[in-house]
Amino acid sequence: MGEFTTVAVDAMGGDDAPGVIIKGAVDAVTEKSQLKLVLVGDRETIEKELSGYTYDKDRVDIRHASQVISNDESPVAAIRNKKDSSIVVCQKMVRDGQADAMVSAGSTGAVLAGGQLIVGRLKGVERAPLAPLIPTEKGFSLLIDCGANVDARPSALVQFAKMGSVYMEHIIGIKDPKVAIVNIGAEEEKGNQLVKETYPLLKAAKGIHFIGNIEARDIPAGKADVIVCEAFVGNVILKMYEGVASTLFHKIKEGLMSSVRTKMGALLIKPTLKNLVKQFDAAEYGGAPLLGLKGLVVKSHGSSNALEIKNSIIQCIAFKEQDISGKIGDMLTDN
Amino acid sequence: MGEFTTVAVDAMGGDDAPGVIIKGAVDAVTEKSQLKLVLVGDRETIEKELSGYTYDKDRVDIRHASQVISNDESPVAAIRNKKDSSIVVCQKMVRDGQADAMVSAGSTGAVLAGGQLIVGRLKGVERAPLAPLIPTEKGFSLLIDCGANVDARPSALVQFAKMGSVYMEHIIGIKDPKVAIVNIGAEEEKGNQLVKETYPLLKAAKGIHFIGNIEARDIPAGKADVIVCEAFVGNVILKMYEGVASTLFHKIKEGLMSSVRTKMGALLIKPTLKNLVKQFDAAEYGGAPLLGLKGLVVKSHGSSNALEIKNSIIQCIAFKEQDISGKIGDMLTDN
Repeated sequence: MGEFTTVAVDAMGGDDAPGVIIKGAVDAVTEKSQLKLVLVGDRETIEKELSGYTYDKDRVDIRHASQVISNDESPVAAIRNKKDSSIVVCQKMVRDGQADAMVSAGSTGAVLAGGQLIVGRLKGVERAPLAPLIPTEKGFSLLIDCGANVDARPSALVQFAKMGSVYMEHIIGIKDPKVAIVNIGAEEEKGNQLVKETYPLLKAAKGIHFIGNIEARDIPAGKADVIVCEAFVGNVILKMYEGVASTLFHKIKEGLMSSVRTKMGALLIKPTLKNLVKQFDAAEYGGAPLLGLKGLVVKSHGSSNALEIKNSIIQCIAFKEQDISGKIGDMLTDN
Repeated sequence: MGEFTTVAVDAMGGDDAPGVIIKGAVDAVTEKSQLKLVLVGDRETIEKELSGYTYDKDRVDIRHASQVISNDESPVAAIRNKKDSSIVVCQKMVRDGQADAMVSAGSTGAVLAGGQLIVGRLKGVERAPLAPLIPTEKGFSLLIDCGANVDARPSALVQFAKMGSVYMEHIIGIKDPKVAIVNIGAEEEKGNQLVKETYPLLKAAKGIHFIGNIEARDIPAGKADVIVCEAFVGNVILKMYEGVASTLFHKIKEGLMSSVRTKMGALLIKPTLKNLVKQFDAAEYGGAPLLGLKGLVVKSHGSSNALEIKNSIIQCIAFKEQDISGKIGDMLTDN
């Protein structure tokens, strides 16, 4: 492509920061020659971590930030008061065009609040939804919205459907992605006030492949590619994934330790089971994009490992090269 | 106790009706001498099924009903038009005091609609919530409301908390049950409009043990006994249980069949795993009560087996003997 994608990486956010963040960043920049990174956080700490790696120094900068926002702080207050925090500095870089995208595994609330307040929404976007990829039997679906802004209006849900479709088609590569709205039944007339009002709008919307309602039980089966819902419901869906999976694996473990027979069986199936746990436990794959902003903001979950950080960073290249913001802008003003 | 509990049983509803229904009914009446049953449905079919069993004929009656409501029919239209359907006849018996309770594994919509329209709510009850028991790591929790009436008001959610507490204490035997409201964070100020308005009301409510917010991921872990939510959210939670569990078990099966090593392991752990599938697959344990009505309406899930039908019927005895309707009435007018 010739052109670089510049990603601001919050080196200080996440359970295992800065270690796994720096490793993921170095791996990403080594794998993708069109990538430039700015590692944001305490300069001394970052330099010390970096000193252990060999990488192309021309494509990795450090931007010092003296503060860190913790998960316990009130997000809005934190982004207002900690103007030199790694998250806020990353967001200002995106706002000012010094970076095309940012990746953070830090405070979800601060990333979401700063995304709206500092980076800012694209023209015409009512709300910037957080859209993680969730595992299904067939692969992944995009769950949109799981953010912090609850009680959305029907028109915002229609925008979610459009933004999600652009993302799944051009970043994930699913042609003509199937869009469904979460409901308590499969019939058109079912639902709460919000869903009843949104349904006909989705049916009439141009440029999306709307297949109707989806019941929650069909989400893990992968019956739709873009799962549209209001953020409260999206949050419940995402966390039920984690909760049910974790409880089931505890129960299985307990069951497997209950007799000599099952203990022997457990030894044989352990690698397979471990693989599954990994697939389902975190629920969110790589980083979840906050869509509809003037630049890409990617939220990686707090327990991200280096591979997930690497993938979150690499995702930003396609976002820039495919001009997702432009495509979203076109789609929202199109009809 | 001396006094009988009379239960009207919908012999025609459910995937395996009337076979498993009649078997469950006969098992219940044989096990509990204080039980009287009225089997409602096609007399000839019921008599034929009954002819294979030995039981106390003095405590089992048949009430002929010429119609059956199917799952595909519009619930409200069905209960209005099919006045001689097994569900409607059961509900009229409860309304008229000919039965203390009814149990149906038939159309959920018709059972819910008829519960409100035919049986009727207790004085002061805003909505009659459907409250299934869901499996957790510690045992069970009551998920209230999973019914068809969405968009409840805060005052209705407070009533759910009270009704759920009475049920868990006096039917399930959990002393001072912990009540939590489903939210997207643990902090008091989080949530959508409904939860924000409901939270202080729950905090101030007398006679319940309110512990605050519960995030969806903590529901399967069993962190509260009574999980209060609006019906749309309750439906999503219930169906995510089924969906995630079913997808996980598919994935595990697939993984176990992937090599000779895991196939050997699978043979050893099969009974343990099967047991777990059974525990989680149906999600709802036995019958879910529709609370707040002038009599007990129990909805058993469509795929109920005879044991689950038996348990649903037996549950009705405690409901009558503990005067749950009276206790709910007292609690709602108390403060």
